[in-house]
Amino acid sequence: MNGAQSLLRTLVDAGVEVCFSNPGTSEMHFVAALDSVPEMRGVLALFEGAVTGAADGYARIAGKPAATLLHLGPGLANGMANLHNARRAHTPVVNVVGDHATYHKQYDAPLESDIEGLARTLNGWYRESAKTAEVGADAADAVAASQDAPGRIATLVLPADVSWGEGGVAAAPVAPRAPKTVAASTIDAIAEVVRSGEPVAFLIGGKGCHEAGLLAVSRISAATGAKAFIETFPARLERGAGLPSIDRLGYLAEQAMYQLDGIKHLVLAGAKPPVSFFAYPGKPSELTPADAKVHVLAAIDEDIPAALEALASAVAADTEPVLQQANRPALPSGPLTPQNWVEVIGALLPEHAIIADESNTSGLLLPAATAGAPRHDHLTLTGGAIGYGIPVATGAAVAAPGRPVISLQADGSALYTISALWTQARENLDVTTVILNNRAYAILKMELQRVGAEGAGPRALELLDLSRPDLDFVKIAEGMGVPATRATTAEELAEQFERALREPGPHLIDAWVPPLF
Amino acid sequence: MNGAQSLLRTLVDAGVEVCFSNPGTSEMHFVAALDSVPEMRGVLALFEGAVTGAADGYARIAGKPAATLLHLGPGLANGMANLHNARRAHTPVVNVVGDHATYHKQYDAPLESDIEGLARTLNGWYRESAKTAEVGADAADAVAASQDAPGRIATLVLPADVSWGEGGVAAAPVAPRAPKTVAASTIDAIAEVVRSGEPVAFLIGGKGCHEAGLLAVSRISAATGAKAFIETFPARLERGAGLPSIDRLGYLAEQAMYQLDGIKHLVLAGAKPPVSFFAYPGKPSELTPADAKVHVLAAIDEDIPAALEALASAVAADTEPVLQQANRPALPSGPLTPQNWVEVIGALLPEHAIIADESNTSGLLLPAATAGAPRHDHLTLTGGAIGYGIPVATGAAVAAPGRPVISLQADGSALYTISALWTQARENLDVTTVILNNRAYAILKMELQRVGAEGAGPRALELLDLSRPDLDFVKIAEGMGVPATRATTAEELAEQFERALREPGPHLIDAWVPPLF
Repeated sequence: MNGAQSLLRTLVDAGVEVCFSNPGTSEMHFVAALDSVPEMRGVLALFEGAVTGAADGYARIAGKPAATLLHLGPGLANGMANLHNARRAHTPVVNVVGDHATYHKQYDAPLESDIEGLARTLNGWYRESAKTAEVGADAADAVAASQDAPGRIATLVLPADVSWGEGGVAAAPVAPRAPKTVAASTIDAIAEVVRSGEPVAFLIGGKGCHEAGLLAVSRISAATGAKAFIETFPARLERGAGLPSIDRLGYLAEQAMYQLDGIKHLVLAGAKPPVSFFAYPGKPSELTPADAKVHVLAAIDEDIPAALEALASAVAADTEPVLQQANRPALPSGPLTPQNWVEVIGALLPEHAIIADESNTSGLLLPAATAGAPRHDHLTLTGGAIGYGIPVATGAAVAAPGRPVISLQADGSALYTISALWTQARENLDVTTVILNNRAYAILKMELQRVGAEGAGPRALELLDLSRPDLDFVKIAEGMGVPATRATTAEELAEQFERALREPGPHLIDAWVPPLF
Repeated sequence: MNGAQSLLRTLVDAGVEVCFSNPGTSEMHFVAALDSVPEMRGVLALFEGAVTGAADGYARIAGKPAATLLHLGPGLANGMANLHNARRAHTPVVNVVGDHATYHKQYDAPLESDIEGLARTLNGWYRESAKTAEVGADAADAVAASQDAPGRIATLVLPADVSWGEGGVAAAPVAPRAPKTVAASTIDAIAEVVRSGEPVAFLIGGKGCHEAGLLAVSRISAATGAKAFIETFPARLERGAGLPSIDRLGYLAEQAMYQLDGIKHLVLAGAKPPVSFFAYPGKPSELTPADAKVHVLAAIDEDIPAALEALASAVAADTEPVLQQANRPALPSGPLTPQNWVEVIGALLPEHAIIADESNTSGLLLPAATAGAPRHDHLTLTGGAIGYGIPVATGAAVAAPGRPVISLQADGSALYTISALWTQARENLDVTTVILNNRAYAILKMELQRVGAEGAGPRALELLDLSRPDLDFVKIAEGMGVPATRATTAEELAEQFERALREPGPHLIDAWVPPLF
């Protein structure tokens, strides 16, 4: 057994069954080993940003990590932006980064670069496998490290000679660090706060956004009158009919400050104190009201659902959660608008759908339109690095073959990782991509005003315009093997969306929705 | 004048006239300032890999840096792979990376990441502008640093509040560090070597690959019988009829060892001792014959052409260089092959063309077919990070509006930065892209064998196959606003290539060339 084979065997034994891959020469023994460890599914992507984004989407849905296979420092670099998003989502990811043979590094060959320096910026787990006999143990440690609560990026560097060397030993799985239990005294103290009669709001993040946490929060709210919000960009929010419907805190600082206005206590469960996404001249960064006290019920590495349930037992023992009733918008008609396209999605969202949401400004009205749709998972852009949507949808579809994946994608960020469409076609994944094509960096046109950039003239606006030339996403998708259509009216969008859901495999709809602003 | 305005004014005064840009909210004041400093041309790209690759191509042709505008850590990360190539090319690049406002960084907002850690891996110049009043001076230092011999990546981080603050002061240009002069004793010592009668080979890199250096090398060879080679991946090789024709050292180790067989002295001028691109089991990394002595005529930060000319004066005072005669292949016919497509290019290459070459395996026969074509610049993949070709062609075309740019692009690496086609359309650049579409990672199929990866079966080969589904580059290009056609015969390629050269603006030809191997 060579090093690569021991690595793959160890990964599979630890439950890592998918490797999103963009290999090069230094990874050829890993590639060759796929035939001797057939339990590992290799999924090819044509750019590393698609690889790492897919690994993020996979783990958000599967609840366990995928591996990535990346080609030296430049391969890791190309995957960094979506690893940034995964880091912010606390997604477990196991990167395998091929490197030059150990004895070859001294020669500074063209692809040599500072892999460790790059990987360290992810603030996760890092190791270079130094010996073939240790690769298995290193891989077991990497899988465990990626799943240490709350989840993180583990990067294992695999030099080519360590990979091709004989003497590999598969290692048994290693247990990751479980979430810490919140102290009873913390539960008691916060129970006091919510019983105080003063205005309280909860801000829920991490695994608190899954069913158990939401049910507990809803009971607490119903029993005590406390407000509750979901963090602005949750990794995975379970929502829809039959679950409590809890609003997300707004992206715009003004909106968040309105939501939190008047509260005296902010209770955090898996979320951080809310701050403005960007700084704006003359406006505060911190969004918690100045006279409100912040309490931490559960930190991100603690057992958030258990803490919420314990608190619910303390303050809402006899209270039922308030569940969202089934309630869809009517199918709209007429030319597409920022309002009616979300109504189409809300009206037609299938059961058990997964929404990978990178709709940005076009999607501001989406949550209301889908609140009463059938139960679904809503994945959001946790780290703000655009180009996450199409890859994350791809990985989510690999993780959940039976579930329809809806990829809502702004035009301005679609080109970053567009080649993930090809992987969807190759793997015949049930992903329906809707491009919200407003032919502009609409969010930046808004932000140009919000940052008070006076004197912005035609040369500035030119840099935020995507209409010269127009991007034709129908042709781009077809060029990558994904059937595609264009919708300019709500009726067309509805008809095309239904058809896409009905037919197996990926589809893309280029929806010409005018800007909200 | 705010910080952003002082930055732009300083850049323009220092000769930096183009800023390849992919801005976000934190860069909005920089964008707004474009209207008050109209001498700066903002060129929008839809992905940062296109931004940084374009800056590399621009500087290789313009001989001076462009600026980039990147959005925080993830924007820099997306641009890193092509910055790696630029670093290997010793290309001067001035990165402007927008960051959160200084007072906002403490809140760890979603886009916060370790920008300095990322940038430091480039081993260039780095600074964060701390105060508005100092931005101008920082920018002047950055431009100078990027041009310190031999050229490097300078990264200036611009926090949003430093950018929007009032009190900016434009700074005067700062002189970069000039190339060092090679000592006369070194010239003398190497003159002794080449006069010794023992077999000598020169390996030429950096600015030695431009006209003056090539003429000097040719004279030395003609007078002394020394062999001469160009480094395997030169940043910019001037070649064609009327210039000396000097072969590049082969990419394959076997090829390079054959070229250097029997030499007793290797003289380096702007190149490093040759090493294998990757390591292979049981094969040496170093390609210099074991019994040959290595001599450094000029290091990369020294004046390479001057050193070569001084040596030529010493050993070849009365010898003329050997110049390549005009000599084109005949126009071939029949289905496209790895041989006849390069003959089409050689037969039709226009005067003063710039070739951005990422043809990889498909292009192995290109140099011979273009050696006697009209004089042209040949740009290569210096750092091995694929996805460089389309962006570099874009930047080269911005640098040289009057010159035809030929972008020779392998299919496997085309998707990395494909959106640079959109920038070519937007800027109406005279770029003719030829996709060498062999529907495979052909180089990896070759490498799978070369690394001795035994037991590679169908699951391994599947990961190197691009034909399921086929990429339709005609549709992809048209989707980005670039007119495109498909060629399957030499006649079609010739007709389409001529037409593309004749018509203004960008064109793409999807050439179905079967794999060489």
